[in-house]
Amino acid sequence: MAEKNRLQQWRDRISSELDKVMGFWTQYSEDKEYGGFFTCLSRDGAVYDDLKYIWLQGRQVWMYCRLYRKVPRFHREELLNSAVAGGEFLIAHARPSSDSLKCAFVVTRDGRAVKVQRTIFSECFYIMAMDELWRTTHEEKYKRNGQAVLENVTEDGKELPGCTGRHQNPGHAIEAGWFLLRRAFSNMDCNLGKIAVEKFVLLPFESGWDKEYGGLFSFQDVDGHCPTQLEWSMKLWWPHTEALIAFLLGYMETKDPRLLNNFQKVYDYTFTRFSDPEHGEWFGYLTQEGKVALSIKGGPFKGCFHVPRCLYMCEEILTKLIEEEEG
Amino acid sequence: MAEKNRLQQWRDRISSELDKVMGFWTQYSEDKEYGGFFTCLSRDGAVYDDLKYIWLQGRQVWMYCRLYRKVPRFHREELLNSAVAGGEFLIAHARPSSDSLKCAFVVTRDGRAVKVQRTIFSECFYIMAMDELWRTTHEEKYKRNGQAVLENVTEDGKELPGCTGRHQNPGHAIEAGWFLLRRAFSNMDCNLGKIAVEKFVLLPFESGWDKEYGGLFSFQDVDGHCPTQLEWSMKLWWPHTEALIAFLLGYMETKDPRLLNNFQKVYDYTFTRFSDPEHGEWFGYLTQEGKVALSIKGGPFKGCFHVPRCLYMCEEILTKLIEEEEG
Repeated sequence: MAEKNRLQQWRDRISSELDKVMGFWTQYSEDKEYGGFFTCLSRDGAVYDDLKYIWLQGRQVWMYCRLYRKVPRFHREELLNSAVAGGEFLIAHARPSSDSLKCAFVVTRDGRAVKVQRTIFSECFYIMAMDELWRTTHEEKYKRNGQAVLENVTEDGKELPGCTGRHQNPGHAIEAGWFLLRRAFSNMDCNLGKIAVEKFVLLPFESGWDKEYGGLFSFQDVDGHCPTQLEWSMKLWWPHTEALIAFLLGYMETKDPRLLNNFQKVYDYTFTRFSDPEHGEWFGYLTQEGKVALSIKGGPFKGCFHVPRCLYMCEEILTKLIEEEEG
Repeated sequence: MAEKNRLQQWRDRISSELDKVMGFWTQYSEDKEYGGFFTCLSRDGAVYDDLKYIWLQGRQVWMYCRLYRKVPRFHREELLNSAVAGGEFLIAHARPSSDSLKCAFVVTRDGRAVKVQRTIFSECFYIMAMDELWRTTHEEKYKRNGQAVLENVTEDGKELPGCTGRHQNPGHAIEAGWFLLRRAFSNMDCNLGKIAVEKFVLLPFESGWDKEYGGLFSFQDVDGHCPTQLEWSMKLWWPHTEALIAFLLGYMETKDPRLLNNFQKVYDYTFTRFSDPEHGEWFGYLTQEGKVALSIKGGPFKGCFHVPRCLYMCEEILTKLIEEEEG
């Protein structure tokens, strides 16, 4: 019964947070004139860059459609209309071209091409590639006799030399963990499920959690050296959303109490530090100590995606868990 | 006379710092077996990655040769031998290949090719390109009616749309400032010299200096928005080395006392925060508040280059200034 209360408190807070987050994006990010979405929003929702970052357009269309389809209170015509306008914008302006780059990373508000220096493009490709890579090859990346998940390996799954090969990204490992968990459950593969929970969720969380200030590190070095990424000790919003999902998904299938206690830990940190009580939505980038480092709510790599997807999935899982407790 | 004392104090401290810095690299970074240099060194000089990062091999060869040729106390045979071994390593293992990439970014200790994911390569190209770009086109990048130096512009020197086009990098602006200053002096171009000092050195320093904690920001947004680079508020070692050079070079030619006062400011910050009294050399990466964020002394982008080049140039300029005072 005490457990049910805890689940219900979480669910209620998460539901209201999802409403607030989606309220933020529907209020500030929609481009009524050209369709599609502004994603570079300041803390208070002001647009500080009206370029259309293509990958975030796609994510936002996906998010709107998913909520419209799955969550009754979001089955609203204006949400569908915005998603359709975003989709039309993408089809009209972001199709692969004959250019050497398959797809524009960014276009102007009205869809014209923008020439941006290559690094930005490569970051785009990096993210798209990583996403695809994790979905298809995450099992390969599980190295060091099962004691660590590495961020970069060779094409045939071997360790790379140098510090690049030793980099760990706790958020990516945990994200891969819940992808694996879902596959394990749909295939009724208990062994894979166990590996996913122990090695891809609990292990990276244990080593990636900052014991001093709380929060998940962005990067670590598997041999304990200082990582070479400048932001290694910063606390980014998205690894925390991955962890919230992973712990609840894992608990739903295993009922292992460690997972719920870790959920509590991430939940407390996240709702205290990332959620902005004044203007809604979440800050994306904190210092190691938990101070807001970048005041932006959205940017070239943060849009209407990680936060609402997390809240929507957690709300759904918690509802099921509460029903189980009742049933 | 008071001025001469100040110049002498600076010169003495800088000379001894240069000795210590070069002592660090000659003691820890040389690969006696294969030639070339380890650059990924921990705080105490331990090698944490023995890959050879090609651009830093080149920089270190350059640095050794320059000191050997120009500074009598570095005219030592072992320094020349190390430089030659480094040059031979480069010739043997880093020549442009028929590969799609013109030059390897990184090779193993004994010179074999390493396959690293594209982002690392693109960062390499980014740095090499920026370097070349700044040397050739820095005048183009001076925008906003002369009130700001922008980091990224179009190929024909126009402003780019979006936040990328608004990014400012105080360190790069000041570095461009002293490149321009040298050109102005060698061409006896007073007008260019004045622009270099006012607009490329004093202006970016004024706006890029952190009034709260001291130190130069890594990135800023020309319109005052929050920058989108995660490390924007971190204090990196190299912009400070550029500023030290720029202020002394500018003072040498103009005798403008503002430049010497700013030199004092950067000097105090730099020698207090970056210089490591325990193991020598400088930390590279501090938080906004000035705490060491990465404990490494060298890495894929920090080697035997910025610090000794700065100290060597400052020592040279201060010696000239002291002679002028005496003469």
